[in-house]
Amino acid sequence: MSSVTASYPWTASPLIASAPMRLISGPPLAYEVSSAGGFGFLAAGVDVSGLAQNLADFKSLLAAAPIPSSKPDILPVGVGFILWGADLSLTVKVLSKPGNAPAAVWLFAPESPAQLKSWAEGIRKATNGKTKIWVQISSVADATEAVAVAGADLLVIQGADAGGHGRYKSAGLISLVPEVIDTVTAYCSENGLQVPGFIAAGGIADSRGVNAVVALGAHGAAMGSRYLASSEANIAKGYQDAVLRASDGGVSTTRTDVYDKLRGTTGWPKGYGGRGVTNKSYEDALSGVAFEENQKAYKTAEAMGNTGWEGAGARMTTYVGTGVGLVKSVIGAKEITRSARGESKV
Amino acid sequence: MSSVTASYPWTASPLIASAPMRLISGPPLAYEVSSAGGFGFLAAGVDVSGLAQNLADFKSLLAAAPIPSSKPDILPVGVGFILWGADLSLTVKVLSKPGNAPAAVWLFAPESPAQLKSWAEGIRKATNGKTKIWVQISSVADATEAVAVAGADLLVIQGADAGGHGRYKSAGLISLVPEVIDTVTAYCSENGLQVPGFIAAGGIADSRGVNAVVALGAHGAAMGSRYLASSEANIAKGYQDAVLRASDGGVSTTRTDVYDKLRGTTGWPKGYGGRGVTNKSYEDALSGVAFEENQKAYKTAEAMGNTGWEGAGARMTTYVGTGVGLVKSVIGAKEITRSARGESKV
Repeated sequence: MSSVTASYPWTASPLIASAPMRLISGPPLAYEVSSAGGFGFLAAGVDVSGLAQNLADFKSLLAAAPIPSSKPDILPVGVGFILWGADLSLTVKVLSKPGNAPAAVWLFAPESPAQLKSWAEGIRKATNGKTKIWVQISSVADATEAVAVAGADLLVIQGADAGGHGRYKSAGLISLVPEVIDTVTAYCSENGLQVPGFIAAGGIADSRGVNAVVALGAHGAAMGSRYLASSEANIAKGYQDAVLRASDGGVSTTRTDVYDKLRGTTGWPKGYGGRGVTNKSYEDALSGVAFEENQKAYKTAEAMGNTGWEGAGARMTTYVGTGVGLVKSVIGAKEITRSARGESKV
Repeated sequence: MSSVTASYPWTASPLIASAPMRLISGPPLAYEVSSAGGFGFLAAGVDVSGLAQNLADFKSLLAAAPIPSSKPDILPVGVGFILWGADLSLTVKVLSKPGNAPAAVWLFAPESPAQLKSWAEGIRKATNGKTKIWVQISSVADATEAVAVAGADLLVIQGADAGGHGRYKSAGLISLVPEVIDTVTAYCSENGLQVPGFIAAGGIADSRGVNAVVALGAHGAAMGSRYLASSEANIAKGYQDAVLRASDGGVSTTRTDVYDKLRGTTGWPKGYGGRGVTNKSYEDALSGVAFEENQKAYKTAEAMGNTGWEGAGARMTTYVGTGVGLVKSVIGAKEITRSARGESKV
């Protein structure tokens, strides 16, 4: 375990990462997580046009209050990329600028193994190997592939309970974490490769979940839903309130492409859907309401602002994992991070 | 934690139970589990006509080699019932006979809360309260209901990863266990009820999974898939070999009613399906092959015996959880039980 946190000297064990949630995980959230000894991630997502500014903003926060033990030539932060949509050459251009090397990138949803390979090679070249390659996977087969083609330094093992996008066909962490670790460790041993680090994600919202995945063999945990309800998340009040209200996530959420379609998000490779709270948009899609009509109703809800998330007829998207019922209040990301490590009570 | 194992004085902590798998969990398996300090379950399932004989066989094993610390008037074994199909009055008749009181019953899949209540009351009356009431649930709402209407002594928290039958809409244990425990504990406190014990099931196959659910707050774990590959399971060789071959359970298994339909099993309440390895029967159903044709092919496979589970065109049902990839060899149920508690290496 020490070998993983040793690569990120400002972090404490078990490693707690904030997931790179598109639009939501900005510099203030990432900074607070890293300054609490966790691993904060910025979300580039599919659009890297804001990456340079995000890094500049993070560096301003860092300059104002440096994070102890972070290395001078590596930023104590990570950046998440959704590979099918993100621009590698622009990414390389930004990250190769002096002082712009993040400690890690979190690569997700490649269109092909070749694309994953290109990204891993491109990033390593851009920052002279300073940036570690994290790859998020949700099956044993994808885990082995990520090590084989990208030489992943760390695997983010995403369980079926994860909120937002992930593969429809996946298992929960209880079985996925040990099988990935066993299989990848054996593969590395057979092929003379270094065994990567392992972080688990999906359904973890407090120190109990963190301790559970450590018992399963992981070095730490990544959380998304819990940080949606952080003071520093860049999130609409209506969305955040909907997260606090939801409970019994196995019943109240589902993984679907309905919200992608309504929002006009195209491009996710086959087999991926987004887990969120089931709402009127979802019910209408299921009961056969014409797409145009459903989308029109969605656009109307969108124009309502925060109230578009309220009531039985709510149509706005609440991407969240099955751990949503464990998220009861908005608190600071620092407190979330420390508490997840078991250092204090929330 | 001690309060739960104290109710079953022959057991050790954390409590390891073998799930009552219909047709498969017979007296030899249950006896070996209990004799290793675990909690063995017999499966009555939907058909209690064999219950008296099963109990008699278990008692013969017990007479030949008594299990230390078990109480003289309570059998160190449990019985699982699938409520929508099982006959309560016959069950009461059998269990009320002197010497036939099991230490617990495991109630699953009631047609209604009223049916669950009748069973809990009927069993308690039949054995003068000697038999503890375990209720298997897979949502927070069902957990609270089981305590409210049946006064459940213990909740078996079934996660989405579980093999065989369970609810389509459920979460993995990583989020389900802590939310059920928090909610039920608060409910009991508000209503002056005793907090039940909690056992987690679904995707657990070795001590790592057991330690994980203990970290989540459970008193122990129930395993099904792992005991399919025990020497004492009453299972076809073809089925058992298929369990050993399967891996990457999030990808290779799914929850569906296809196998129920092909096998002519009707009666499961709405919302339940069985998780098993996806095979040619499943693919044909999905791709629109006519039911009659698909069932005919299934019957042909069935007549083949063990080879009906073999090859890319296999059609026989392999009910199993996503932890199947962690099950690599057939060993004795005693060794499985002890190893799950962390007492020895498999």
